[in-house]
Amino acid sequence: MTTSDTVTGDAGPAVREELARLRDSIDNIDAAVVHMLAERFKCTQQVGRLKAEHQLPPADPDREARQIARLRALAENAKLDPAFAEKFLNFIIAEVIHHHERIAEDTAGGATPSANRATTSSPGE
Amino acid sequence: MTTSDTVTGDAGPAVREELARLRDSIDNIDAAVVHMLAERFKCTQQVGRLKAEHQLPPADPDREARQIARLRALAENAKLDPAFAEKFLNFIIAEVIHHHERIAEDTAGGATPSANRATTSSPGE
Repeated sequence: MTTSDTVTGDAGPAVREELARLRDSIDNIDAAVVHMLAERFKCTQQVGRLKAEHQLPPADPDREARQIARLRALAENAKLDPAFAEKFLNFIIAEVIHHHERIAEDTAGGATPSANRATTSSPGE
Repeated sequence: MTTSDTVTGDAGPAVREELARLRDSIDNIDAAVVHMLAERFKCTQQVGRLKAEHQLPPADPDREARQIARLRALAENAKLDPAFAEKFLNFIIAEVIHHHERIAEDTAGGATPSANRATTSSPGE
């Protein structure tokens, strides 16, 4: 620690450069994650459609239990809190349900029961 | 839709294969995201340490406003709800704060004020 630094952030160019480097990495990671989640939502929409078309049950508790166990293990290997992996999956599921609710509202009145089922099933997958 | 399918999920091998293919993609994406978030938390920890060492202010409202605006725009381009991007960033920030609280608890009693600040600053970055 350099005692010449001040609380106003006068940390010198080397520190500012290092901070900018780390922030660039954080921004790159965030952009990658947002795009991967966009791809994930495309997959869950396809699963929902497939299940509705073939009258498969929307929920699959065994599949969800396997997903949770797998993500917890992956998080542990990556030195993350396993509880975080579970929270992450629940966060994504909540978003997919939110999407589905909005689509159901948008299509209410014009949609067939089959189409409605396609947009409200398989939140986690 | 094939009317021969039943609600118990007797959808035929082709449909089951397609479902398995989509689920494999979802699992790959989830694994990638968990590992990228692990990398992101490494970055925020480094930022926290850097700021504590050089007495930079932990919070940076301008930086956070830029992050939110950028993630909203990225989400829009990826055909995701911009509000989701903001929720995602808030979810991550909450997790980082949770990490920091735990570390602070673990180090309470043995840590220096400087070390404590390093683990409790820069939640969003």
